[in-house]
Amino acid sequence: MRSLQLKAIQQLRLFESPIPDPGPGEVLIKVSHCALCRTDAKMLQQGQRDLVLPRILGHEICGTSVETGERFVVWPGQSCGVCPPCTRGWENLCSRMKIVGFHTDGGFAEYVKVSKSSLLKVPESLPDPLACLAEPLACTLNALEQGRVSKDQTILIYGGGPVGLMMAMAAKSLEATPFVVEQNPVKFQRSEKFRGALGIEGALDGYSFRSSTFDVVVNAAPSPGILPEGIHRLKDGGCLCLFSGLTGDTAYPASLLNEIHYRQLHLAGAYGCTRRQMEWALTVLNALPEAAACLIDGIIDLEEVPAALEAILAGNAMKFIAKL
Amino acid sequence: MRSLQLKAIQQLRLFESPIPDPGPGEVLIKVSHCALCRTDAKMLQQGQRDLVLPRILGHEICGTSVETGERFVVWPGQSCGVCPPCTRGWENLCSRMKIVGFHTDGGFAEYVKVSKSSLLKVPESLPDPLACLAEPLACTLNALEQGRVSKDQTILIYGGGPVGLMMAMAAKSLEATPFVVEQNPVKFQRSEKFRGALGIEGALDGYSFRSSTFDVVVNAAPSPGILPEGIHRLKDGGCLCLFSGLTGDTAYPASLLNEIHYRQLHLAGAYGCTRRQMEWALTVLNALPEAAACLIDGIIDLEEVPAALEAILAGNAMKFIAKL
Repeated sequence: MRSLQLKAIQQLRLFESPIPDPGPGEVLIKVSHCALCRTDAKMLQQGQRDLVLPRILGHEICGTSVETGERFVVWPGQSCGVCPPCTRGWENLCSRMKIVGFHTDGGFAEYVKVSKSSLLKVPESLPDPLACLAEPLACTLNALEQGRVSKDQTILIYGGGPVGLMMAMAAKSLEATPFVVEQNPVKFQRSEKFRGALGIEGALDGYSFRSSTFDVVVNAAPSPGILPEGIHRLKDGGCLCLFSGLTGDTAYPASLLNEIHYRQLHLAGAYGCTRRQMEWALTVLNALPEAAACLIDGIIDLEEVPAALEAILAGNAMKFIAKL
Repeated sequence: MRSLQLKAIQQLRLFESPIPDPGPGEVLIKVSHCALCRTDAKMLQQGQRDLVLPRILGHEICGTSVETGERFVVWPGQSCGVCPPCTRGWENLCSRMKIVGFHTDGGFAEYVKVSKSSLLKVPESLPDPLACLAEPLACTLNALEQGRVSKDQTILIYGGGPVGLMMAMAAKSLEATPFVVEQNPVKFQRSEKFRGALGIEGALDGYSFRSSTFDVVVNAAPSPGILPEGIHRLKDGGCLCLFSGLTGDTAYPASLLNEIHYRQLHLAGAYGCTRRQMEWALTVLNALPEAAACLIDGIIDLEEVPAALEAILAGNAMKFIAKL
């Protein structure tokens, strides 16, 4: 089968590889589409903590079961089900987690073998390329769930890339009011249609919104300065959701932590998503397909993936989706 | 009336002052007992952000209404009731908060005038000196509520002073399992009877407990090193409650914040308490009077308060309670 394999850092090549042979509890999926993620681009550029090489990348997968012909998206986690986080319902924090496209081969290939328990049925009316967005959208739903976002709350989202915009879509689905800040004018311009479709306020500068403080702030961008600014923009008793890791070796003063104490703020970490959240994401996508379609830059061939990953690293891309 | 007034930093003197004249919505309370708090000691030593001088200190008050003879403890906050935190039920975060013993005269006096809405009836069987503990105990209940502590969770509490021990009592009342670390051997020894009464595990060193990780960690001590150590001791998905402000000008690296992100931890600030939490604290004290009594160093006269505040600053005291 055709597959795109990362042999080593910076070495991503098209290969002819054998069709995977599913073991007990596994299913062979004929991949229809697999979306490109910023993490794929970073793995190409510099590797990643959980990446085991060589590896077929791709973890935002939609396809059909070879056995039954049913259409599925794939929860990329493979959790043990018995460790403490798993038993508490946080399978995304499984202490023995293996991830499709990281530890095992992923969806930039004609076929992928995955755990049967990782399959989530796609609603009939939802097209494959949009279904691929279920995984990143579910991660944003997890963030809002960690931040305990509720109806009518105001959410300031730093970062208007595809993930920040999906965060806004997730907020809308919770009947909260998102505000998206994107400092890059090109990227900001590119999100206009999406924002228009959902009636989302956006700005190049976080200080030009009608609200000056917010119930929840989320970082959907890694800039370390978002943390102090975001804490400043919270209402007393509000929550800052750490959705993105912070880059660089910035140090934060104890006075910033004391603000969390005195103003009774919450800081909520969020990482990955659960199957329940992916199912929820599929219903959100199915309800808002026109808006979701605005996030797609293009449906591309496997051989165009390396160039598209470079475009993602360059900073102005939304979502590219590989068609197998 | 006899009163203890802080005229200026380091100048705490017994005065003969006029009995306060309650205005509309206010009630005159004949003070029975008023407990000493570490904050009182700090105000004497160095002032405090909310302190307006000159001031009669004391905010852990139990007394009787001059008008009706009913026995009350006093919620020291005076909230506006209409600002956003107030309308969300977080009156402790009121944006126009005035605090008895900080902005208005407090309970180190024979009489105090307070807002009628700040009064909470004391259960009949609860003695006055124990009722004074309702306010600090309520602050610990607020912390555990912010940390979303639930039944059967394990709680690591850094600091075995009176507040850390009340935190453990609050955890017990929630059917959680507290573990108390107190590095000072004298203070640790002094808490033995209290810990014995409630069956609470304590240690001089946080690494000698049978659990190595915990659902919730709370800082009931201001040492800045508790933050990284506490994060290290959390289960993935756990919560660190910032109950105490952090002293000094320590800086924390972005990598510590990234641990919150990757391990989906929560950091929950807690400050003060609400009336609801004080009522809850009264029921906890009423259920566990023998244990609560172990926290009391002595019932003292007003003129002994300055020396007792010095003992609190020296570091080995539990609770002193002034009898009026």
